[in-house]
Amino acid sequence: MQLAKQSWAQIGEYLARDDRVLLPIGATEQHGPHLGVGVDYLIAERIAAEIGARTRVLVAPPLAYGMSQQHLEFAGTLSLRPQTLGAALQDILQSLYRHGFRRVLVVNGHGGNAPALASAATIVQDQFPALRIKAFQWWLEPAIAKLVDEALGAQQGTHASNHETAFMRAIAPDGVQPERIAPRDAPVVATGEFDSPTRFRAKYPDGVMGLAPLRADAALGQKLLEASVALGVQLVEQWS
Amino acid sequence: MQLAKQSWAQIGEYLARDDRVLLPIGATEQHGPHLGVGVDYLIAERIAAEIGARTRVLVAPPLAYGMSQQHLEFAGTLSLRPQTLGAALQDILQSLYRHGFRRVLVVNGHGGNAPALASAATIVQDQFPALRIKAFQWWLEPAIAKLVDEALGAQQGTHASNHETAFMRAIAPDGVQPERIAPRDAPVVATGEFDSPTRFRAKYPDGVMGLAPLRADAALGQKLLEASVALGVQLVEQWS
Amino acid sequence: MQLAKQSWAQIGEYLARDDRVLLPIGATEQHGPHLGVGVDYLIAERIAAEIGARTRVLVAPPLAYGMSQQHLEFAGTLSLRPQTLGAALQDILQSLYRHGFRRVLVVNGHGGNAPALASAATIVQDQFPALRIKAFQWWLEPAIAKLVDEALGAQQGTHASNHETAFMRAIAPDGVQPERIAPRDAPVVATGEFDSPTRFRAKYPDGVMGLAPLRADAALGQKLLEASVALGVQLVEQWS
Amino acid sequence: MQLAKQSWAQIGEYLARDDRVLLPIGATEQHGPHLGVGVDYLIAERIAAEIGARTRVLVAPPLAYGMSQQHLEFAGTLSLRPQTLGAALQDILQSLYRHGFRRVLVVNGHGGNAPALASAATIVQDQFPALRIKAFQWWLEPAIAKLVDEALGAQQGTHASNHETAFMRAIAPDGVQPERIAPRDAPVVATGEFDSPTRFRAKYPDGVMGLAPLRADAALGQKLLEASVALGVQLVEQWS
Amino acid sequence: MQLAKQSWAQIGEYLARDDRVLLPIGATEQHGPHLGVGVDYLIAERIAAEIGARTRVLVAPPLAYGMSQQHLEFAGTLSLRPQTLGAALQDILQSLYRHGFRRVLVVNGHGGNAPALASAATIVQDQFPALRIKAFQWWLEPAIAKLVDEALGAQQGTHASNHETAFMRAIAPDGVQPERIAPRDAPVVATGEFDSPTRFRAKYPDGVMGLAPLRADAALGQKLLEASVALGVQLVEQWS
Amino acid sequence: MQLAKQSWAQIGEYLARDDRVLLPIGATEQHGPHLGVGVDYLIAERIAAEIGARTRVLVAPPLAYGMSQQHLEFAGTLSLRPQTLGAALQDILQSLYRHGFRRVLVVNGHGGNAPALASAATIVQDQFPALRIKAFQWWLEPAIAKLVDEALGAQQGTHASNHETAFMRAIAPDGVQPERIAPRDAPVVATGEFDSPTRFRAKYPDGVMGLAPLRADAALGQKLLEASVALGVQLVEQWS
Repeated sequence: MQLAKQSWAQIGEYLARDDRVLLPIGATEQHGPHLGVGVDYLIAERIAAEIGARTRVLVAPPLAYGMSQQHLEFAGTLSLRPQTLGAALQDILQSLYRHGFRRVLVVNGHGGNAPALASAATIVQDQFPALRIKAFQWWLEPAIAKLVDEALGAQQGTHASNHETAFMRAIAPDGVQPERIAPRDAPVVATGEFDSPTRFRAKYPDGVMGLAPLRADAALGQKLLEASVALGVQLVEQWS
Repeated sequence: MQLAKQSWAQIGEYLARDDRVLLPIGATEQHGPHLGVGVDYLIAERIAAEIGARTRVLVAPPLAYGMSQQHLEFAGTLSLRPQTLGAALQDILQSLYRHGFRRVLVVNGHGGNAPALASAATIVQDQFPALRIKAFQWWLEPAIAKLVDEALGAQQGTHASNHETAFMRAIAPDGVQPERIAPRDAPVVATGEFDSPTRFRAKYPDGVMGLAPLRADAALGQKLLEASVALGVQLVEQWS
Repeated sequence: MQLAKQSWAQIGEYLARDDRVLLPIGATEQHGPHLGVGVDYLIAERIAAEIGARTRVLVAPPLAYGMSQQHLEFAGTLSLRPQTLGAALQDILQSLYRHGFRRVLVVNGHGGNAPALASAATIVQDQFPALRIKAFQWWLEPAIAKLVDEALGAQQGTHASNHETAFMRAIAPDGVQPERIAPRDAPVVATGEFDSPTRFRAKYPDGVMGLAPLRADAALGQKLLEASVALGVQLVEQWS
Repeated sequence: MQLAKQSWAQIGEYLARDDRVLLPIGATEQHGPHLGVGVDYLIAERIAAEIGARTRVLVAPPLAYGMSQQHLEFAGTLSLRPQTLGAALQDILQSLYRHGFRRVLVVNGHGGNAPALASAATIVQDQFPALRIKAFQWWLEPAIAKLVDEALGAQQGTHASNHETAFMRAIAPDGVQPERIAPRDAPVVATGEFDSPTRFRAKYPDGVMGLAPLRADAALGQKLLEASVALGVQLVEQWS
Repeated sequence: MQLAKQSWAQIGEYLARDDRVLLPIGATEQHGPHLGVGVDYLIAERIAAEIGARTRVLVAPPLAYGMSQQHLEFAGTLSLRPQTLGAALQDILQSLYRHGFRRVLVVNGHGGNAPALASAATIVQDQFPALRIKAFQWWLEPAIAKLVDEALGAQQGTHASNHETAFMRAIAPDGVQPERIAPRDAPVVATGEFDSPTRFRAKYPDGVMGLAPLRADAALGQKLLEASVALGVQLVEQWS
Repeated sequence: MQLAKQSWAQIGEYLARDDRVLLPIGATEQHGPHLGVGVDYLIAERIAAEIGARTRVLVAPPLAYGMSQQHLEFAGTLSLRPQTLGAALQDILQSLYRHGFRRVLVVNGHGGNAPALASAATIVQDQFPALRIKAFQWWLEPAIAKLVDEALGAQQGTHASNHETAFMRAIAPDGVQPERIAPRDAPVVATGEFDSPTRFRAKYPDGVMGLAPLRADAALGQKLLEASVALGVQLVEQWS
């Protein structure tokens, strides 16, 4: 169900019977010394592909670049400024609308994209009231959070920690370097403060927020993937 | 050599010994009734991947969306406006520079991206004179043009015609629907006129510019790929 | 501690001994048939004024306009587009930095401002790493949520419902028209969908999200104000 | 007649019988060592409130931030760039139009806002020809100028000088520090040159343009207020 | 002294001894049924050329397009939006600064350009405090106003009326169609209202503001030119 | 046929019988030590004027400023950023459309303008499908290239070399300083690399790309002008 592999003629036929589309967006952003910088878009792309395969809903190409300014002090982070990401999402949503898509599930792999996505949705929906947009962010889903809690307890961490490491072990093991995971103890302290790139790096010197992801394995990753896909399928199928 | 699979720590090590990077950009844009809309980014991504594999130069994730306004009357075309694409490229180039990359080969799969790329390069290079940027566009290379001439003679067409069809047959046969290729005769007439989406569709009702791609086969596509990669490898290796 | 009433000479003296400032931002946005459209900025302005009075920290003038596109189908909503609000916040934060302010507590009265605030903070902090910015949003504070829970149980609603009505009864009773509050039952159903102005109005025809604010009284509002101020004071005093 | 205290339902009723609105805009900008930086918005807010009270025309919340780049070398000046202020005014004017307002009297307290206001009006009126916008700037009114001439003769000065000081003594005496007014003699010399922040500060080291405001008293300020309100009332009532 | 005719080598030599430049800007905008739409830039270009000839100060090419939104209901008006004109002026001023120009006299032939010019000067001077910019607008000079008063008394009108007609008769008689000047009586009534294009046309159906320019002759135009040039020369020579 | 010399009334009459217009655009950009920086707009203006004279098609005022960032290290280059030029062209094209022009021949004298022109055309044509835009760039025309080949053989160079020098000798000999042309040998080496201003200057220290323009004379320039005009006339007359 890759839109990229369908021609305009086939997509036109699809639009005669359906108006849904999946749009995976992520980021190219540091995820610790042990994970490839593509984590966020690779996960989003995979979740979207699986949802598409099960629901026969078209999947747009992934937007591999997101808003990652906070991580720019780590090599390999390639970030769009908030307004650039917002403009790109606006343009893509407007294109989708023009062809007849009316329900867009944005499968977002990166929390930092949320403000730009909200801004873009606000602008485009005011232009086209018939356009409906949902954001699906796997790690915010209560069912996923529960699953992670059960597996990891208080040890879970956040950015680049156990849950993302487990997910990558399941879907892209060649993007995981386990030998670079050192035992460490750096609990996330929520200060309510926005972090500049330098402050972020000072707080999290190896880029991982929370404990070292020593307990992440591919089995847990597989569970996260399956649960995410199941939730996404539900969203897509029950969206009327 | 996928940057997406390397962690910041690994990329930092790479930057200690090299300052080159490949950036594949393409489009999600109609390519006739017979080719998937991802042609331009799938080709760019593949060429870049092969160059990276042979030269050990890192390959950034593909930018799958480009400037395709002209094609918006065909379903599935998802276009960034020129200024959005320019801003995205600026942001990515600035991020690359920040980490220490100094030579960026943009492997561009889509001619419509050229103005925005030129604009972005202009802006960013004025900020950072040490940043060097080259564009590699396979179909504009004399060696490729010659190869296409020899294989197809006067029958080659341009957009979505024989050369792109051949390329897709070689790298993504599941993105080609041969049964939708009808014999037809619609020579490209260069009028020097910029085409609006409606005018473009009126001139090229099935989205193919030039003759029907009846003579495109995977063997030719393989040759195009190999020649493109060889040229790209040369560019990267001889760039001092 | 109103910055508006201090001259540049006085502010200069303040900056020689302190680098903190409070920035109240809100919105001019419908809040049901019974509350004045200024709710969000009136509350933010009041909380900030009280925090300033107790901590001797300067309070900038309120930004009375926020991002309220979703509510534009209701008369009196005056909204800044997301990028406009982001630009305004950037400019104000840059001005503050230029004078020597280094810790800015943004007292935000309106959830819809959060994306633009995050975007602005991202941009400005990358320019000025020494600038520290916190957002204080009273209704998101666990202590406030608990207080509301205890007082209202499951009846609390969200936008323009009991908690905001109570707050307004306490701080601006002339901005409350109790006779326009009708008993009704319109539970908020979170669909994960971004709402266009027309869709929002269709879902919440009188602009209140949740149950009618029949149980909101000034005493509860006073408690909310006091708790909010106490939390804000703590944030400001313990910010090192 | 504060719009902020009226609900959407009340504003809707108002719009059924009237289409006028007052929009006070000002600045947060140095006004000498003796006046609070809020002068411009406090005066605009007060004039607008009085006009509203006498004419029963709604008064929108004040925009407390304006274009004050020239004054950024003085602590406490918080400035919007010209294009940001223009965008904010555009958004507010578009919101007003959407609800049915057709005649907007912008009560502008700050000369530096005039270019952005003209730009915004130009753009929005081209979109909505039925929208009518007037700017009321008290100090430019011939009647006010005459009144100031009679009271102060050649001693009046301009920015932060006698007339603004008098006005503040009348409406916000706690925003005036008389002990900081030193006798001095710094006549304004019009050079036709645009002033950068540093050049402005070099020319007017204490931020006052013209003579020290030694002759400003609350009685004069009261007269200025009354005359301004009377003129504004006339504008609003005779606007057909 | 046309910069356009000097090579970079010559301009470099000039900059070794002088840092002044004249920048003529105007508009392409209707000026009644009897004057060519280039009035504003033709006058500015001519005044600047004469000042340059007498002072040996370089004259940049004219910017023939200005902010003329208000006149767009008349054929031939080609207008830049305010923000576009502001950006163009910013770019030109930044370029001038980069080469070493430090004193720029903007010879502005069109009142509608003033807001964008003020905005651009504000931005660029904050970047480059050493850059000094003056605006010279001939019709606002007291000496010119006096000269017009003496010649025309109460009959002078404003836009496209006697003074501009006289000027054009002197400098570009082929841009004047006297046979299209009809006796009429349409006094300018200042309402303080910003005019939309349609409202402007309704008020001034033939595009002339004020009385028909029946008394404008080339002799008066020659006097206006000479007086303007003399004033400009003075500004340039006495600018230290 | 100068639009600048025609009044709105005359232009309205023209539009009743024709919908074509010529828009000359150029640049203010270094062209070697021997040519005035106005080369690109002076040539475009002249070609357009001649085409207009022969076809009776209106000629808009020249846009004398273009995108010349690459040349900013040479004194006198005054450049618009790409997005500014794009915005200016958009505004002018939209104005033209509003009055009824439907076929716009952009006579472009400067290759660096092409990306911004393509971007502007893309945007405006998507708004107004009936608007038709052609770019005429004399040096890209095969007939001109052939003429240059015949006259100069392999010695032609590109920027500021023989062809532009010859053109200027024919149309603006006072903008040519032959004594500054030194014999030299600096062949253009196409590297495919975008040049920053500093890199450009390092590669072409005197600003000329290619051999010294020792063989350029006015007779060749006259031929280039005539051939360009003939081609332009053809384009305009055969445009249906």
